[in-house]
Amino acid sequence: MLTLHHHPMSAASRFVRLILGEYGERAELVDERPWERRPEFLALNPAATVPVLVEDSGPGIVGGMVAAEYLDETRGAFQRERRLLAEKPAERAEIRRLTEWFLGKMDSEVTRYLVRERIFKLEMRANEGGGSPDASAIRAARANLKNHMRYIGWLAESRNWLSGPKLSYADLAAASAVSILDYLGEVSWEEEPAAKDWYMRMKSRPAFRPFLAERVRGLPPAAHYPELDF
Amino acid sequence: MLTLHHHPMSAASRFVRLILGEYGERAELVDERPWERRPEFLALNPAATVPVLVEDSGPGIVGGMVAAEYLDETRGAFQRERRLLAEKPAERAEIRRLTEWFLGKMDSEVTRYLVRERIFKLEMRANEGGGSPDASAIRAARANLKNHMRYIGWLAESRNWLSGPKLSYADLAAASAVSILDYLGEVSWEEEPAAKDWYMRMKSRPAFRPFLAERVRGLPPAAHYPELDF
Repeated sequence: MLTLHHHPMSAASRFVRLILGEYGERAELVDERPWERRPEFLALNPAATVPVLVEDSGPGIVGGMVAAEYLDETRGAFQRERRLLAEKPAERAEIRRLTEWFLGKMDSEVTRYLVRERIFKLEMRANEGGGSPDASAIRAARANLKNHMRYIGWLAESRNWLSGPKLSYADLAAASAVSILDYLGEVSWEEEPAAKDWYMRMKSRPAFRPFLAERVRGLPPAAHYPELDF
Repeated sequence: MLTLHHHPMSAASRFVRLILGEYGERAELVDERPWERRPEFLALNPAATVPVLVEDSGPGIVGGMVAAEYLDETRGAFQRERRLLAEKPAERAEIRRLTEWFLGKMDSEVTRYLVRERIFKLEMRANEGGGSPDASAIRAARANLKNHMRYIGWLAESRNWLSGPKLSYADLAAASAVSILDYLGEVSWEEEPAAKDWYMRMKSRPAFRPFLAERVRGLPPAAHYPELDF
């Protein structure tokens, strides 16, 4: 029995949900607001970050990439053609590089700021850091987003999927971040047609569907967000 | 033939050097100043971060944890008792959680700031971000360091090595960060005797020795830095 402690608008959480979906694994989802520092959640992960995956009553498997490695070892390795991490060490390294790019670098330059300023601050109380968004953080993140969308476009143009010929963790990581930014209407799709093409393919995968129905209270999605053809 | 592009005062770079040392692998070391954005280096890693490991003339294996996974797959898996990543998925997840804690969380709360303000700024030209250190960044990092040393002390007290009964990537990651902070004289050892004990054991490992002879130009180490018994 798998349990995933997550936030619906956390890119790393969506990444793990996509992996579970692609592998046909059911997991119980527990919504966390990490800033509330719930004691039972801190016991699972002293860093108080999402996602945390738990199998049966085992220890917390903390973080998107760590959960992805765990799922590769316990599920992916038996998936043959549908495995999301390649077999060869050099190809695995490229998939991991890109996954960390989207969940690490892009997160620290773009996603984290836009999600914090535009979503989490709506959900936080004043003493938790809630309040009005910081316009300069939003501006900086938007400028950085252009470069990241250009990189996704370049990868999508030069390869069938972002890390090479096959769908991999790299696509799932990028699509997780992009899906949240797209909810917020932050992505200028007309500037990056190859990225748009790739994202349409991602969006039509069954594992992706649940995201299209999710809503932030008080913040409706961009009009095209739930559309498969946009 | 392995080549490691690194900076001697980058914790993630030292982490990969410790792995290579523990496994008895020789690698050619290429010093990089990532902020110079050398074109040949950018071609290996568009994020312009160290470390980058290269095997023969293969692609860049980018980042401390990605290199560690690669070395586990190509070397560690054949090391039996000396393997630095456990065999069982749940134990591997705990080692990865701690490795990311020290190379990720501790880096973004402590190490990155102290290294940038106190070392990199000495090496950077003014147009690269060089100049006098930012006192408020240093102050914040020092306050955070106390919590991280307390956590290392707590782990060292409750387990034989930081992740469990055996030496693992978690110890190498923590020791890499701590060794740089110790060079800078930032660690209050008397406050954390269990952490000190653990660090003395790390320091006496042959793989660790090269660090003790390294010097930053214009910034001598804390007096006890090279001493095995301090």
